[in-house]
Amino acid sequence: MKSEIEIKIRGYHADHFKHVNHARYLEFLEEARWNYFEDLNLIEMLFHPKSIFLAVFNIKINYRRSAVAGDTLRIETALNRVEKRKVIFSQKIYSKSSDKMVCDAEITNVLINTENKELIKINQEILEIWPELQKYYDTYK
Amino acid sequence: MKSEIEIKIRGYHADHFKHVNHARYLEFLEEARWNYFEDLNLIEMLFHPKSIFLAVFNIKINYRRSAVAGDTLRIETALNRVEKRKVIFSQKIYSKSSDKMVCDAEITNVLINTENKELIKINQEILEIWPELQKYYDTYK
Amino acid sequence: MKSEIEIKIRGYHADHFKHVNHARYLEFLEEARWNYFEDLNLIEMLFHPKSIFLAVFNIKINYRRSAVAGDTLRIETALNRVEKRKVIFSQKIYSKSSDKMVCDAEITNVLINTENKELIKINQEILEIWPELQKYYDTYK
Amino acid sequence: MKSEIEIKIRGYHADHFKHVNHARYLEFLEEARWNYFEDLNLIEMLFHPKSIFLAVFNIKINYRRSAVAGDTLRIETALNRVEKRKVIFSQKIYSKSSDKMVCDAEITNVLINTENKELIKINQEILEIWPELQKYYDTYK
Repeated sequence: MKSEIEIKIRGYHADHFKHVNHARYLEFLEEARWNYFEDLNLIEMLFHPKSIFLAVFNIKINYRRSAVAGDTLRIETALNRVEKRKVIFSQKIYSKSSDKMVCDAEITNVLINTENKELIKINQEILEIWPELQKYYDTYK
Repeated sequence: MKSEIEIKIRGYHADHFKHVNHARYLEFLEEARWNYFEDLNLIEMLFHPKSIFLAVFNIKINYRRSAVAGDTLRIETALNRVEKRKVIFSQKIYSKSSDKMVCDAEITNVLINTENKELIKINQEILEIWPELQKYYDTYK
Repeated sequence: MKSEIEIKIRGYHADHFKHVNHARYLEFLEEARWNYFEDLNLIEMLFHPKSIFLAVFNIKINYRRSAVAGDTLRIETALNRVEKRKVIFSQKIYSKSSDKMVCDAEITNVLINTENKELIKINQEILEIWPELQKYYDTYK
Repeated sequence: MKSEIEIKIRGYHADHFKHVNHARYLEFLEEARWNYFEDLNLIEMLFHPKSIFLAVFNIKINYRRSAVAGDTLRIETALNRVEKRKVIFSQKIYSKSSDKMVCDAEITNVLINTENKELIKINQEILEIWPELQKYYDTYK
């Protein structure tokens, strides 16, 4: 499954050089992951009832083209792979008008228990609520 | 007492028009109030032990001149007045090079109990730890 | 005309106290004003062709209730009044679930020429492209 | 040369989970790089007179521990390596109280001509103004 959102760039997203600042893109990517979670109903079905949150553990991001105020960005979010304690997303940001890639990123998350702050191992219960994970989990094993 | 900090403006503070964006100034002003609290040792002496925090209730801010990357801002923070449940700060931002005023703001805070989230009335205990408040409190009464 | 947008609050919008930070609301309000401008087609019809931008000159904002991650905010933007060189907006933020007011703000903008950075007086040409302004301008005169 | 700055974490730096949000760290790292440039006088000696700016091309960042409001962060910035058109920094963020690493990042910058937006190849003139670069440049060749 690939989740998509669009974000219109405003003057306040841009910096001194009139480009979207590199830190701001991480907010756009986080917004896009929340939309992915909502598309799969994970907030209501998994995160809240099981006291889980996904913490960002590692980010690799390439800035390929600049985007400026007035552009609309299309952000694609998809699972990339899964490890025992990690969920790795691939995210791509395109300029909607040119369809050219602005950024691509690999975001590694770990599952953390909101009560005791401990890492959670991906288990059967999680895989059932988030079946998308299963496919990647099988490959991992 | 007047507390002062300096902040050097970077490209990432500015927006599309190369000016510091109006939302970013509120972060600068908050930073300056935290420095005021530290100058008076209020975090250790009042906020943590008494489970108090100051929540922003009202902001009035005038943007008088623009500031750009490379400028250094000097921010002055002082009490303006005190009411039964409110502490009102006056904050002024100057460009350090020109000494001209960039912004001035009046920030009204309410004291909130971090445990039960209820408003706190300024009382004798608070006035003793934050004697600066006393002078303004007397005027108010 | 009243322009409306909705914004879903995420964890990254909130601060240490789990509330949306007061500076972040100014970004939400700016986003809502851009939507107002788009609803009236002002960016294409007025701002770009006439080299005009609206700079924030003064903000008055009241924080009435806190909003937390998961809430959806509804933001209403409408003209409040017009002066010779100023356009004043009234903006209200509601929690969508409770329909209670979270913030209300009065934002005063000045029209600035993007070429020479000088203030622009509201004139007949501007009033024709932005007829909404006319009604308030008449009251002002 | 290793440049160091300290940043005190405030409530507005933290997010819903009371941790500094991952996007905010990129602002801290950018602030630290600006300090590095200032330590070497590069803004006045190289960037402005030669119309150069360093654009972020790639970021790899590992989040190792969380940091919360009240912590002071120490950020170390040093050159890591140099390529024909790239300057790669290594940055490390430590909690000052525990001296434990909070984040480490590798930031790849490209030199861009602010006039024509074209990439700049590192040349003799640049190496003379930024001698630190020479050592790494020699290794690269």
